[in-house]
Amino acid sequence: MENFEFCVPTKYIFGQGVVEQVGATVKSYGYKKVLLVYGGGSVIKSGLLDKIKSQLKDEDIDYYELGGVKPNPRADLVYEGIKICKEHDIEFLLPVGGGSVIDTAKAIALGALDDGDFFDFYLKKRKPTKALKTGCVLTIPAAGSESSASTVITKEVDGKIIKTGCGSPLNRPIFAILDPEVTYTVSPYQTACGIVDMMAHIMERYFTNSTHVTVTDNICEGILRAIIENAPQVLNDPTHYESRANIMWAGALAHNNICGVDRVQDWASHHLEHQLSALYDCAHGAGLAVIFPAWMEYVYKHDVNRFAQFAVRVFNEKMNFNNPQTTAVAGIAALRRFFKSLGMPLNFKEIGARKEDVPVLVNMLGVDENTKSEGHFVVLYKHDCEQIFYNACDYQD
Amino acid sequence: MENFEFCVPTKYIFGQGVVEQVGATVKSYGYKKVLLVYGGGSVIKSGLLDKIKSQLKDEDIDYYELGGVKPNPRADLVYEGIKICKEHDIEFLLPVGGGSVIDTAKAIALGALDDGDFFDFYLKKRKPTKALKTGCVLTIPAAGSESSASTVITKEVDGKIIKTGCGSPLNRPIFAILDPEVTYTVSPYQTACGIVDMMAHIMERYFTNSTHVTVTDNICEGILRAIIENAPQVLNDPTHYESRANIMWAGALAHNNICGVDRVQDWASHHLEHQLSALYDCAHGAGLAVIFPAWMEYVYKHDVNRFAQFAVRVFNEKMNFNNPQTTAVAGIAALRRFFKSLGMPLNFKEIGARKEDVPVLVNMLGVDENTKSEGHFVVLYKHDCEQIFYNACDYQD
Repeated sequence: MENFEFCVPTKYIFGQGVVEQVGATVKSYGYKKVLLVYGGGSVIKSGLLDKIKSQLKDEDIDYYELGGVKPNPRADLVYEGIKICKEHDIEFLLPVGGGSVIDTAKAIALGALDDGDFFDFYLKKRKPTKALKTGCVLTIPAAGSESSASTVITKEVDGKIIKTGCGSPLNRPIFAILDPEVTYTVSPYQTACGIVDMMAHIMERYFTNSTHVTVTDNICEGILRAIIENAPQVLNDPTHYESRANIMWAGALAHNNICGVDRVQDWASHHLEHQLSALYDCAHGAGLAVIFPAWMEYVYKHDVNRFAQFAVRVFNEKMNFNNPQTTAVAGIAALRRFFKSLGMPLNFKEIGARKEDVPVLVNMLGVDENTKSEGHFVVLYKHDCEQIFYNACDYQD
Repeated sequence: MENFEFCVPTKYIFGQGVVEQVGATVKSYGYKKVLLVYGGGSVIKSGLLDKIKSQLKDEDIDYYELGGVKPNPRADLVYEGIKICKEHDIEFLLPVGGGSVIDTAKAIALGALDDGDFFDFYLKKRKPTKALKTGCVLTIPAAGSESSASTVITKEVDGKIIKTGCGSPLNRPIFAILDPEVTYTVSPYQTACGIVDMMAHIMERYFTNSTHVTVTDNICEGILRAIIENAPQVLNDPTHYESRANIMWAGALAHNNICGVDRVQDWASHHLEHQLSALYDCAHGAGLAVIFPAWMEYVYKHDVNRFAQFAVRVFNEKMNFNNPQTTAVAGIAALRRFFKSLGMPLNFKEIGARKEDVPVLVNMLGVDENTKSEGHFVVLYKHDCEQIFYNACDYQD
C-alpha cells in the first residue's frame, strides 16, 4: 500500500429533480457572474439549458454563454472562453454537459487567471497554481470529470494533433449536480461509451504492482460488478431511474480516485486511446473498448494472478487452480463479450481506424525505445505500444 | 436509491511516516494558535505528543494543551476546552488520539464560537451554524471520527446519564493524518474494539429498506470483507504495516458516509449500545459486539433476503435457496464467531452489564410505545428495545 493524499471537496448533489437546484446552488456560493459552458443539441432540445438560465435569472446571477463544445474538445473554444472570462470578470464556470463540456470549463478556469498559454499546463511545461472555481451539471455519466482532478484537451501543435490531460486538485469542481433523469435521453451508443469509460477508469487503477491493497481492490471490483449488473437494464429501458442512478454514481466514484488512492496506477490504455480519438474523432469510450482488452492481452502474463482475481471477482469466472492463466484469459474474453453486448466496437475497423496509421499513432503518443514510455503495471516502449495497436487492429471476434 | 448530498472535504494524509508532517500541515492552513487535545497514556509514552509539540514549535505555531480525555468522553472537559479557546482566541483544534479525543475536540470547536451551552447541539435543541476548524492525528482506527460529520459526548443531565451525538457538516475535520505505524502500540483488545466499531458503522448503513442500491451495497460488502481478511493478521502481528494500513483506511471509509449516501440508515444498535457504555463505561466496540448480533436476530425476518445477501457476500456462507432464512441466520452466527475470534464479548456478563438494569437502559434510551422509537430498518419501540437488551443479556455461546 502506497502513501497518499486524498481530498474530494466536491459536493455531490444527487438524485431525482436536483436539476431544479442549479440556480440556488450557484447563489449559495455567492457567485454573481458566471460563464455557462455547453455543447450542442441535447441540452438545448431537452429544455435543460433554458431551465438553468431561468433559474440563474431568478437568482439575479449574470451569465455569459459559451456553447458548441464538441466531443474530444479542442483548444480553440478554450481560448474563446478565457477571453470571455477576462473581458467580463467572470467569477465562476458552470458547465452543463458531459466530460467534454466539463473538461473545457476546467481548462478555461485554469487559463482565466493566467497570463500565458493555458495549454502549457497540458504539455506539462508549467504547473497551475490558481484557477477560477467550477461547478457542474452532468448530463452524460462517463468521464468522471464531475469530481475528478483531471481535464483532457486536444490541440494541433506544429502540425501534430496532441490530445493530453492536466491533473491538479484545482480542477475538482466545487459541486456536481447529478440528476439521473437528465440522462434518460442519452443514446444507447453514448450510454455504452460512458459505461466503457468508467470501467476503464477503474481498471487503469486496478491493474497495479502495489501490493496489500485489499480495501481498494474490493471497492474497485464492487463498483465494476455494479456497473455490469446495471448496464443491461439501462440499455433495455433508458428511463429506468434506478439503474440510471447506479450508473451515474458509479461513474463519479470510478474517477474521483477512491478506486486508486493506495497504488501506482497504469493509464497506458487511456493514453493509447487518446491517439485514436484524436486522429479519428471516435468516441473515447469506443476507442477504449478496442484498446483496453488488447492492452490486457499484451500484459497479463506480468501478473497472471491479478488477472485471474479480476476474472473471478468481476466476471464470476471459475478459478482454474491448475492453470490460472486460463482464468486470466477467460476474464479478458468476458470483458470483450460484455463490451460487445453493449454494442461496442472491438477492433480498429469498427471505429474507422486503419492499420497503416499505426506508425502515426505511435508517433503522436511520443514514446521511444529508451526514455519515453507509457504505463506503470508494465512499462511500455515504442515497440510494445505499436504491438498493442496492431493487436487491437487485427482482433477478430 | 434515495436522493443525497455528499461532501467530504477532509484531506486524508495517509501512510508511513506522515506523522512527521503535522506541524507543516497546520502551518499550510495558516493557523498560528491551536489547542492540542489528547488523552492520557499512550500518546505521551510513545513520544508522539512531544514529537508533534516540537513540530509546532519549529513552525512557530503557539499551542495550548488539553489532556486527559477519557473513553466515552464527558462534557466537563469540553467546557474546559471551550473556556481555553475563548480566553486565548484559539483558531484551530488539533486532537491527537482516537475517537474520544477527536469527538471532544469537535465538541469544543462547536462551543468555542457559541454563547450558549454546546450540549444543546447534542440534545437537538439548536443546530450549530459555526465552528472552529479541526484537523486530527488519528491513533486508533475505530470511530471514524477523523472524517465523519458526527461527534458523541456523554453528560449527566438532571441525574440521568445522556450519551448522544451531534451530526453536522461543520464537524468534518479539514485534514486527517493517518499513519498506520502509530497504531502498532494499540492493544489487541482496543484493536478488536475498533474493528467491531468500524464494521458496525458499515452495517448500520447496510441494513436498509432503500432498494436498488447496488453500487453502495458492493462497497459496504467489499470493505467488510477487507476488514475481516486483515483483522487476524493485525492481531497476530501488531506491527504488520500492510494490515494495519488496510484496517486504518477501512475505518475512515466506514464512517465518512461513502457506505451510506444512497439510503435510509438504521443506527438502532449504536443508540442501544451508547446506553451500555454510558452506564458501565465499557468500550463502545465491545458493547457493539454484544448488541449488534442481538439486534440482527430480532429484526432479520423483516428482510430475510438482505440478511442472506450479507451472509453470502460478506461471510461466504452458502445460499440455501430452499430456505434463505437458514442462510440469514448463518450470517449472524458467522458474525458472532468472527467477533469471538477477535476476543470480543458476546453477552451482558462479559462487559459487566446486568439483567436487572435493562429497565434503566431502556429509560436512558428514551423510547416509548408510541412516538419515541429507534431505528429505521425496523422501527423499534420500548418493548422491542427491551427485548433486544434481554436477548443480548441471555446469549450463550
